Amino acid sequence: MKIDLNSDMGEGFGPYRLCDDEALMEVVSSVNIACGFHAGDPDTMVRMVRLAKANGVGVGAHPGLPDRLGFGRRELPFTADELRQQMLYQLGALTAIANAEQVPVAHISFHAAMGNMVNRDPVLADLMMDTIRTIDPNLIVFAMPDSIIAHAAARAGLKTLLLFLADRAYDVQGRLVARGLPGAVIKEEDALRARVRHFLKTGTVTTIEGATLAVPARSILVHSDTPGSLELARIVRSEIEATGATIAPAAEIVG
Amino acid sequence: MKIDLNSDMGEGFGPYRLCDDEALMEVVSSVNIACGFHAGDPDTMVRMVRLAKANGVGVGAHPGLPDRLGFGRRELPFTADELRQQMLYQLGALTAIANAEQVPVAHISFHAAMGNMVNRDPVLADLMMDTIRTIDPNLIVFAMPDSIIAHAAARAGLKTLLLFLADRAYDVQGRLVARGLPGAVIKEEDALRARVRHFLKTGTVTTIEGATLAVPARSILVHSDTPGSLELARIVRSEIEATGATIAPAAEIVG
Amino acid sequence: MKIDLNSDMGEGFGPYRLCDDEALMEVVSSVNIACGFHAGDPDTMVRMVRLAKANGVGVGAHPGLPDRLGFGRRELPFTADELRQQMLYQLGALTAIANAEQVPVAHISFHAAMGNMVNRDPVLADLMMDTIRTIDPNLIVFAMPDSIIAHAAARAGLKTLLLFLADRAYDVQGRLVARGLPGAVIKEEDALRARVRHFLKTGTVTTIEGATLAVPARSILVHSDTPGSLELARIVRSEIEATGATIAPAAEIVG
Amino acid sequence: MKIDLNSDMGEGFGPYRLCDDEALMEVVSSVNIACGFHAGDPDTMVRMVRLAKANGVGVGAHPGLPDRLGFGRRELPFTADELRQQMLYQLGALTAIANAEQVPVAHISFHAAMGNMVNRDPVLADLMMDTIRTIDPNLIVFAMPDSIIAHAAARAGLKTLLLFLADRAYDVQGRLVARGLPGAVIKEEDALRARVRHFLKTGTVTTIEGATLAVPARSILVHSDTPGSLELARIVRSEIEATGATIAPAAEIVG
Repeated sequence: MKIDLNSDMGEGFGPYRLCDDEALMEVVSSVNIACGFHAGDPDTMVRMVRLAKANGVGVGAHPGLPDRLGFGRRELPFTADELRQQMLYQLGALTAIANAEQVPVAHISFHAAMGNMVNRDPVLADLMMDTIRTIDPNLIVFAMPDSIIAHAAARAGLKTLLLFLADRAYDVQGRLVARGLPGAVIKEEDALRARVRHFLKTGTVTTIEGATLAVPARSILVHSDTPGSLELARIVRSEIEATGATIAPAAEIVG
Repeated sequence: MKIDLNSDMGEGFGPYRLCDDEALMEVVSSVNIACGFHAGDPDTMVRMVRLAKANGVGVGAHPGLPDRLGFGRRELPFTADELRQQMLYQLGALTAIANAEQVPVAHISFHAAMGNMVNRDPVLADLMMDTIRTIDPNLIVFAMPDSIIAHAAARAGLKTLLLFLADRAYDVQGRLVARGLPGAVIKEEDALRARVRHFLKTGTVTTIEGATLAVPARSILVHSDTPGSLELARIVRSEIEATGATIAPAAEIVG
Repeated sequence: MKIDLNSDMGEGFGPYRLCDDEALMEVVSSVNIACGFHAGDPDTMVRMVRLAKANGVGVGAHPGLPDRLGFGRRELPFTADELRQQMLYQLGALTAIANAEQVPVAHISFHAAMGNMVNRDPVLADLMMDTIRTIDPNLIVFAMPDSIIAHAAARAGLKTLLLFLADRAYDVQGRLVARGLPGAVIKEEDALRARVRHFLKTGTVTTIEGATLAVPARSILVHSDTPGSLELARIVRSEIEATGATIAPAAEIVG
Repeated sequence: MKIDLNSDMGEGFGPYRLCDDEALMEVVSSVNIACGFHAGDPDTMVRMVRLAKANGVGVGAHPGLPDRLGFGRRELPFTADELRQQMLYQLGALTAIANAEQVPVAHISFHAAMGNMVNRDPVLADLMMDTIRTIDPNLIVFAMPDSIIAHAAARAGLKTLLLFLADRAYDVQGRLVARGLPGAVIKEEDALRARVRHFLKTGTVTTIEGATLAVPARSILVHSDTPGSLELARIVRSEIEATGATIAPAAEIVG
């Protein structure tokens, strides 16, 4: 079996860094590159694309809201059209940068508040997916299983790669347990390893209520902007490899 | 004979406007659209592309330095690589926006300080032209005749469209007379009409010293960010039409 | 009787202008200067302060949300503390600039969405007024009569100058009729003149329903960012002078 | 003897941090707070002021160029007037924030490129110092000994606190050895301790050529934006205390 391991990267700005992009790029198989709105800048984007190319990592766009101060985490009162133009702008910017390095943009993964806004509104999600298809019908959309984005992508005829979040608790509805609640984030190495191993063997996760939830995901997302993210990614990778699965970028899985 | 009439547009931002884009779009045949760094934003870019499409106007990118406060007019200490990434980013952003509207990006015209920096340095100009060719070998580069940019475009195998500035005085070297100097800007309607007519008939301009200078241009640039720019553009257009020439976008002239 | 005539100014940015600040400064008696968040920049602020000083116009701060693209008109999800720090920062910046020109900052007038957010929430309004008092207990707060801001200022022991909007219709509750509705904006010169005259003589306005509403205002606000704002301000000024009232800055009225 | 230990802080932005401000604030006696142009934002500034107050640390302004992407390290083509307005704006913003917390702004220390530009041009330095004196004649100016800024401050009648950089090599002219050159940065703990001890006992430093240079400084600057800055600051502090000197904020030394 092939499985993707992806992370958001290039989320620094000017003198700032949120993770060790160089080291993390050696661990993942797909990278979601910030496109200059919530984080990132043209130089960083070029650096990320070159790192990805050198490491055989699949390149994707990670568009966010134009809000550096809030890091794209605050929902802002943009219209559907404004969100569409913002996504288009960022996707196009990364595409030109990647193509100039002879690298295709293989996928798109929404950042934080932009993702939440799209994932709540089927009409907006359809607008975004239709726009993506117009630009490149082969772009793979990263989404949570059974989410509004996943369904909209399917309606638009776009391929999706479904995500599993290894370090987050799920409830029986398949939703993530909110960060503030007890048990929402899995931090202990042993628990994390067991969780990844269980997911890889059974395609399920044990919910916070103790039930078994099917998670039809083919990609594991590791957040890069938390302390210890590099070590977390290495743990996940070693568990994937221990099962005999092959780590491969999105395009090799759903291409 | 076909001749292009072009202008920089979409150079507003948020609540601000520098010209009546809607009216001016009915006069020109090519538009250089600001790409969000010195001016413009995703919404404005979409609006410009739609206006251009509705008016049969050719769409081009107008990348500038990331300096809204200075409107891209100040030369800033960026490296050649930084300038390249900035251009790529902006060109890509506009390309995605235009393509989503089923409109091709036909040309590129550098804004102010970015243009001046590129036009002073043949090595930088080669880097920029090679990058443009990698992205789209059919992009037409707008340039002054016999300029460093024009020569670099030729070396890269890119097509150029050479510019005539109807309202600016030239010296015998073919350079524009600096704005501060007497006679540098032609403002009187009769003088302007005579100047355009003379250029169209003879392909020359009378320099500020009184000499005759060949100007092998096929496009007339009208600045949009000065008072009266709309009237100026209409005057130039009526003079072009009075000579029997056809006003046509860049791609029909050098395509 | 003394009455103040005020306008928001210095709301340009870089190459952009929203009104003819130089001409308008000759008409008003108080100016609310944008402080660099929704509009304005340090250079513009200095220019405004110097213009105000030369024209004997009272200087006030016009703080807004940090949102240039939206011109501070969109309500954004800031906490009360964030809004407080944003106001403080802007008020302090203008104060230093004014003081360096030997000009006091006499008043404060909130811009658009920041004003709306403060004017909806008495707890937030108290926080803002307490903060203003800590910085300068003599600052005059511009507010609509009977508004949350006016009451909070009174609780904090701050002086207020109450506003009349000459070109906007009121309802019987004393609220402005929303801009989109018919009759919300008074544009005809004769109607405007009659309205100002009526207000000055009776201290009332005829509401959109035809009722008589007391408006205990001592300052008339003229928006500067609409076409014809300069002419509008001149009309209001000439009507004030025709009644024999004296136009005077805020500090001379409630100082 | 009293000596000050100072550091630039609050230089994060949104989600980004350059140092552990909380821990470092327990080590220094004066803090230079970024004012929102090259780094920082209103919330961070308030947080810094409160931390300083809680730790008995003297508060100073650390104004920089409006260039987040370049972190204020690039010299940009601003006029003397523009630089003056930028400094005023930032100084005023911090002053209001500090005063709202009942904390005085005691000193000013220029950041990076703004400092370099001022320190190269006596006319500009005089303009800046005259402006500072107009705002607050008791503000203490941080400067290198015998520098253009130090002399201009003296001409303006402003007090200065002269700086020693513990981790940087000096040449016989009293200038810092450029960072790229061998031996320019002292990183070994023992060498650093010896250097601080030597400076405290003799008021001199051994230059890179082996000569003895008098350094009439009363404050040691520790950079916060380098790895290990917290440990470096602790080392310097322990050496100061080991000599029997008292660590005190600027105002207690030159007040």
